[in-house]
Amino acid sequence: MMLLSRMAQRGRPGRPPGRSARAQARLLSQVVDGCRRLLSERGESNSVAIAQEVLALYAGLTAEQRLAFFKLLDSDFGPDPKAVLEAAQRYAEAPEATRLMALIHAAEPPRQELLRRLNRASGGTAVIVEMRRTLLELLKTHPDLAAVEADFLHLLSSWFNPGFLQMEQVDWRSPAALLEKIIQHEAVHEIDGWADLRRRLQPDRRCFAFFHPQLPGEPLIFVEVALVAEMPAAVGPLIDVRSPPQTDERQYRVATFYSISNCQPGLKGVSLGNFLIKRVAEHLQREFPQLRTFCTLSPIPGFVAWLNQHAPGLREREDLPPKLKARLLQALAALVQHGGEPGAWSAVQPQQASEPLREALSLLAAFYLAHESVTPRGDPVAKFHLGNGARLERLNWAGDLSRKGLKQSLGLMVNYLYDLRHIEDHHERFVHGEVVASRALQRLL
Amino acid sequence: MMLLSRMAQRGRPGRPPGRSARAQARLLSQVVDGCRRLLSERGESNSVAIAQEVLALYAGLTAEQRLAFFKLLDSDFGPDPKAVLEAAQRYAEAPEATRLMALIHAAEPPRQELLRRLNRASGGTAVIVEMRRTLLELLKTHPDLAAVEADFLHLLSSWFNPGFLQMEQVDWRSPAALLEKIIQHEAVHEIDGWADLRRRLQPDRRCFAFFHPQLPGEPLIFVEVALVAEMPAAVGPLIDVRSPPQTDERQYRVATFYSISNCQPGLKGVSLGNFLIKRVAEHLQREFPQLRTFCTLSPIPGFVAWLNQHAPGLREREDLPPKLKARLLQALAALVQHGGEPGAWSAVQPQQASEPLREALSLLAAFYLAHESVTPRGDPVAKFHLGNGARLERLNWAGDLSRKGLKQSLGLMVNYLYDLRHIEDHHERFVHGEVVASRALQRLL
Amino acid sequence: MMLLSRMAQRGRPGRPPGRSARAQARLLSQVVDGCRRLLSERGESNSVAIAQEVLALYAGLTAEQRLAFFKLLDSDFGPDPKAVLEAAQRYAEAPEATRLMALIHAAEPPRQELLRRLNRASGGTAVIVEMRRTLLELLKTHPDLAAVEADFLHLLSSWFNPGFLQMEQVDWRSPAALLEKIIQHEAVHEIDGWADLRRRLQPDRRCFAFFHPQLPGEPLIFVEVALVAEMPAAVGPLIDVRSPPQTDERQYRVATFYSISNCQPGLKGVSLGNFLIKRVAEHLQREFPQLRTFCTLSPIPGFVAWLNQHAPGLREREDLPPKLKARLLQALAALVQHGGEPGAWSAVQPQQASEPLREALSLLAAFYLAHESVTPRGDPVAKFHLGNGARLERLNWAGDLSRKGLKQSLGLMVNYLYDLRHIEDHHERFVHGEVVASRALQRLL
Amino acid sequence: MMLLSRMAQRGRPGRPPGRSARAQARLLSQVVDGCRRLLSERGESNSVAIAQEVLALYAGLTAEQRLAFFKLLDSDFGPDPKAVLEAAQRYAEAPEATRLMALIHAAEPPRQELLRRLNRASGGTAVIVEMRRTLLELLKTHPDLAAVEADFLHLLSSWFNPGFLQMEQVDWRSPAALLEKIIQHEAVHEIDGWADLRRRLQPDRRCFAFFHPQLPGEPLIFVEVALVAEMPAAVGPLIDVRSPPQTDERQYRVATFYSISNCQPGLKGVSLGNFLIKRVAEHLQREFPQLRTFCTLSPIPGFVAWLNQHAPGLREREDLPPKLKARLLQALAALVQHGGEPGAWSAVQPQQASEPLREALSLLAAFYLAHESVTPRGDPVAKFHLGNGARLERLNWAGDLSRKGLKQSLGLMVNYLYDLRHIEDHHERFVHGEVVASRALQRLL
Repeated sequence: MMLLSRMAQRGRPGRPPGRSARAQARLLSQVVDGCRRLLSERGESNSVAIAQEVLALYAGLTAEQRLAFFKLLDSDFGPDPKAVLEAAQRYAEAPEATRLMALIHAAEPPRQELLRRLNRASGGTAVIVEMRRTLLELLKTHPDLAAVEADFLHLLSSWFNPGFLQMEQVDWRSPAALLEKIIQHEAVHEIDGWADLRRRLQPDRRCFAFFHPQLPGEPLIFVEVALVAEMPAAVGPLIDVRSPPQTDERQYRVATFYSISNCQPGLKGVSLGNFLIKRVAEHLQREFPQLRTFCTLSPIPGFVAWLNQHAPGLREREDLPPKLKARLLQALAALVQHGGEPGAWSAVQPQQASEPLREALSLLAAFYLAHESVTPRGDPVAKFHLGNGARLERLNWAGDLSRKGLKQSLGLMVNYLYDLRHIEDHHERFVHGEVVASRALQRLL
Repeated sequence: MMLLSRMAQRGRPGRPPGRSARAQARLLSQVVDGCRRLLSERGESNSVAIAQEVLALYAGLTAEQRLAFFKLLDSDFGPDPKAVLEAAQRYAEAPEATRLMALIHAAEPPRQELLRRLNRASGGTAVIVEMRRTLLELLKTHPDLAAVEADFLHLLSSWFNPGFLQMEQVDWRSPAALLEKIIQHEAVHEIDGWADLRRRLQPDRRCFAFFHPQLPGEPLIFVEVALVAEMPAAVGPLIDVRSPPQTDERQYRVATFYSISNCQPGLKGVSLGNFLIKRVAEHLQREFPQLRTFCTLSPIPGFVAWLNQHAPGLREREDLPPKLKARLLQALAALVQHGGEPGAWSAVQPQQASEPLREALSLLAAFYLAHESVTPRGDPVAKFHLGNGARLERLNWAGDLSRKGLKQSLGLMVNYLYDLRHIEDHHERFVHGEVVASRALQRLL
Repeated sequence: MMLLSRMAQRGRPGRPPGRSARAQARLLSQVVDGCRRLLSERGESNSVAIAQEVLALYAGLTAEQRLAFFKLLDSDFGPDPKAVLEAAQRYAEAPEATRLMALIHAAEPPRQELLRRLNRASGGTAVIVEMRRTLLELLKTHPDLAAVEADFLHLLSSWFNPGFLQMEQVDWRSPAALLEKIIQHEAVHEIDGWADLRRRLQPDRRCFAFFHPQLPGEPLIFVEVALVAEMPAAVGPLIDVRSPPQTDERQYRVATFYSISNCQPGLKGVSLGNFLIKRVAEHLQREFPQLRTFCTLSPIPGFVAWLNQHAPGLREREDLPPKLKARLLQALAALVQHGGEPGAWSAVQPQQASEPLREALSLLAAFYLAHESVTPRGDPVAKFHLGNGARLERLNWAGDLSRKGLKQSLGLMVNYLYDLRHIEDHHERFVHGEVVASRALQRLL
Repeated sequence: MMLLSRMAQRGRPGRPPGRSARAQARLLSQVVDGCRRLLSERGESNSVAIAQEVLALYAGLTAEQRLAFFKLLDSDFGPDPKAVLEAAQRYAEAPEATRLMALIHAAEPPRQELLRRLNRASGGTAVIVEMRRTLLELLKTHPDLAAVEADFLHLLSSWFNPGFLQMEQVDWRSPAALLEKIIQHEAVHEIDGWADLRRRLQPDRRCFAFFHPQLPGEPLIFVEVALVAEMPAAVGPLIDVRSPPQTDERQYRVATFYSISNCQPGLKGVSLGNFLIKRVAEHLQREFPQLRTFCTLSPIPGFVAWLNQHAPGLREREDLPPKLKARLLQALAALVQHGGEPGAWSAVQPQQASEPLREALSLLAAFYLAHESVTPRGDPVAKFHLGNGARLERLNWAGDLSRKGLKQSLGLMVNYLYDLRHIEDHHERFVHGEVVASRALQRLL
């Protein structure tokens, strides 16, 4: 496993030193032959060994050979259209068990079984995750690989089912090797070294991660939580190294998810964050029955981009209530007046902003979150939490004064509220195009 | 998890005390409603909680309700024949990625996704395995459930992939709760209590089991191995409580698999034994480089039944070489002469048998194993090992003098040889109708 | 460590096969030379290796050589009387720090330091415990070894300080190797095999043991507890294999210690049971706050022996209140009348006993426990619990109908009550010759 | 335990907020009363609880109260001079077992038993270690506490016997909380943050620590080792963050101990380093049989101080061979000539030093190590390794160019060689005043 997992970590394709060009050229056909052998009746009896071999060979492929490999998976390891059609016809004639089983078998691309057999190798799961990472990169320029990619996603979703994942708390007793990965993968509020991390692992801050038994020591996704007395409006104090930890547990009334980060690009699209947040909420509720509120303190990463790209087009929108539209256009005008340049926002200093500027931007942000989230123009973080069934709760001016925060959202942050009793209802309404917002936000709009 | 796993263990359907007949009647529709909700867009946001609920309700169903539940899975949670046909036609017209993806989606029975979502509940895997156990029972009398059962098998095979299984040695330091399960599930050579078990866990006897991370403490399958100086011909001495353990490891030249037992009826048909034997062989080879031979000492459970049921028909067989056929008929005649009654074998005392009787029976057994194993009449254990790529190595007269051994095979046992270099070749030849046997056995025939 | 611990377990002295008589004869002087070297300045630099060597040599000594070895420890490794006297005189003249340190050094037998250095060997502790076991055996016939034995006890008491011991629950998930030791060492109510043990590990029965980090897997002492609704009067129902476990934890009001057994004869005299009972009581009180009573259900192992040996002498006793004495003599007379033979008690069938017989025996037993426990004639179990600060609570007629129970105490059992608030007081009164008993028992007397 | 261990860690005496001056004043007598109660017959029955209480009270004492407490331990908890004298006389008259036992009992200060009983509290060991830390501080100004301190050392030496310690490898998978302690306690070559530490935990660098079961997570002492191809002459390259790790294990021929640091001031004087080095050497030899040499790369912390303080007096020394003395005086003259100021050395730049200067300093350093180590003027590190049985192997010019290295030893370093076969011999010769040095160093002198 060591070998493969090191390969998986390395990730970089390319010719290992010492292999001749000729040997390299042969590698691809060796990999494909191995795959065919693995799928053959003959190979079944020795599949673990063959899978091990194929994965070791795969690790030596160059970037071009990997592309060629995935193209072969597409062309040679898909279902036979004619056979599927016949099976579908027979099933349509009489939907019997045997005909259905024949149809399902005919329709499933053989590469799915190939991946399942590759997964028999010890350390195979890590390599398959890494393969998908490569594949996702390639997909950008080779959209025809979509069906291959779909098969990877299908299987990985089944294998990384939350029922198979282990949630573990990460704290200062965790292995340094794990903490290093946390530092490296934190995607929302950068962790600036060990001292910075340490503050986030004090008793009033928690960090939880999902692990898969086949990827020991590899966090899949992690979430950082602050246990505080009130719903926080700014992230700075939460992660300030100098802030003294609150050790009086009676003060923990609100659990705030202030950061969630994926660690495995190869698992993109596999639902993890949704499950992690809910499992952590349950865990914390059990540990601290006094907790009354579960919410986030979230960035609005798409706001400035939207302001520059889509807000100017509001004038042409016909789907908006006239009154709201009027107020939005007024707000846009106010922005221009206060020095902003349409299409080139980025320069507001939240703490020096005038009240009218602040009001104008807040209205636009509220609109962006409450209305645009159900459109392709919406904020990705909003889509994530609202899609999970959370409620849009509160806008926070000057919530994130970091460079990144100013650049992405002029310092604005937002709280989403997770109320486990209403999750399903909120989610359903969101799916049908409605964002559930707090009364205060509704009033604002 | 506790709750569900206790349910899973209990296994028995039925009305828990205290539930009214009316409440009981409502249960089934509650389960099915839960399943629909789980598959709905709305349910997605809360799937772990819903899955938990559905599985808890399922545990309360009576036997009849379970049957009705599986029937509903068949009728209401299968693919739509018309939709599949259309998708297959579109794919046949132009095999593009999007059309393929649409086809695969259309052809997959929704109950597969249902099972994946049920599996999100903690402890869900155990319940699903238990569901399949029930389903396999029902299948005997309700063959129309075959397609539903196939979906269970499909998913469980993916989830119990050997890449996800943990092999662990079972020994005297193992938890008593685990050892108790070993005693209970040993299917080949009964373990008569703790003293008997203990002999089988001494340094020169090993026991290895597969575990799944989601079923902690639950062995899936286990194999017992004897480390000995020579390929053994009888099982009695191997498991004799009074035999002194050989602690001089230099004497370990042959690793003999003398028993392999499944513990989970719900995983029937999921390939486990094949992988376990090979993983154990690798493990032992690393631990004891001096090991030269990996073989089994196996029962021939179907021999007497074949002798009674199929041997009389040898006279009519036209597929046999005339010379062999003549010898077989002669052997049958010898049996009759020596007191056996055609069609009612069971009474031979191996240790008192005359030489001609012994020869006659050995010939017939060799034929049964070497020829019949590739037919439906073949021995199940022979099919298993030969299908795994082992070689038929040696017949052992008076190898198993237990009541069961005498009844099933008149005391005959057989060794299969696992030579990792030839596994693939032997397996392929077996698939094509040829049994690879040792030279000695070839000569005998 | 393996080697030494195996030696320690084996325990049996004697010439290993293959050592010549001459080599054997040399062994003792090799051991003693090793000891001197270990204590020397020179040996200090290499003491772990030397200790290892000495202990390995010691393991090969015959029984006679071991005796000789301990005699040498006595004669050659004790303090120098003259040096001690001088040091004591100097200290008596002026009790200064340096003189005190010199005195302490002079008075400590060098064999104490020898044992501390032997203990540096890995696995050394196990061997030293085993040495003391041998020494205790020898002490019976060689009382002059008392000072050597005292040094062993002194050090082992320091090393097996309760602060260093780990209390662990033993249950059905414990390693079979550990459970086997529990079965083997149970000294009060014999465990008849695994089924019998299993009942004692169900949720309403608990077993806790002390372990020392240096003796992994080796229980030092263990106690068995029943969680019940009322203080029990008979042990049979508590350990009956067929009694259904009470799983409703709300019913647990009384924790009854019904058995406590030492596993290490080499630790005799090291206080363990007292600490274990109190640590278990604290543990259970935390786990089940509803527990109201901690008591024992104890045998009275010395009663019949006392009845035969000492009761006849009551007539001559002058230390008893006349009224009590009269009642006791009357009871003795009643016994004779009811068929008992003075000096040869053993034959009462508790369940058929007449009321007067029962009354007479109860009075005598109450007297035995409440009065004699503070004398050398007292019951060892009573001395243990009363010395721990427990209260004599209740006599139970027909409490133990096992053969052993009938033989030792005519079936009588007794409850001692542990009330943590009064432990110190009861203990002190016991030390000063008073047994604290319940009002009911006081009335009886 | 948490509570006490937190107290132990805090370590700082003082009045906790909220305790009145009056309550504070009472504390000391409460502590002492608790100690007397703990030693009393009465307290024995409840000793764990009392010990817990006493230690909790002790934690609240102010610095002055602690001093008073230790003085009371000295005056009130020592042996009775008269009783000891009598016991010694009786033993001198007739050295019998009972008299010896009485003597030993009389001579042992009761505070030893007090400490053993305090140690019964969970977490007690940590507090006792911390007590001794305080006591060692106080000893500097209160030498009359020496006998009390000796009792602490006596018991801690017995409890922290190497047989009770666990050696564990510290690496990048170790808990961050442990690594942080390693960074903090490294005493030889400062660790500058996590990146610096990480280099020292790569495969070709090892770190091992001793732990005690009662102080989980608390390293007692640790040693850092470099696995290299040749005996190293300078420490810079070994700990250079940018040096690439050597992962080819075949290159590991020499294991170099380049740093050893104690973590527990309260264990000063308890022999740990000697045992750790040897246990690590054995461990590495097993892991890498190709290792041929075990040596140190050590600082010479006392060299410059000796040069300034003692070298000027060489002229008056009469114990030196005349030839050597002449050479040493010549070297001293050379130093002066090359700019050094007698009695104020510190300014040499090793890399720019002239050859004669270098030779002069090397001769003096070799003399310092090879001759002075057996005198009170000797180097503490030299005394440690030579006392452990190592050989003085090689002087290394410019071995440590850090500020500290230049200041303490003008950059000079030294290798000591551990040859397990000669340890005892070297140690004995050292004890008798002889330093064993390599031939090269002998020649130099």
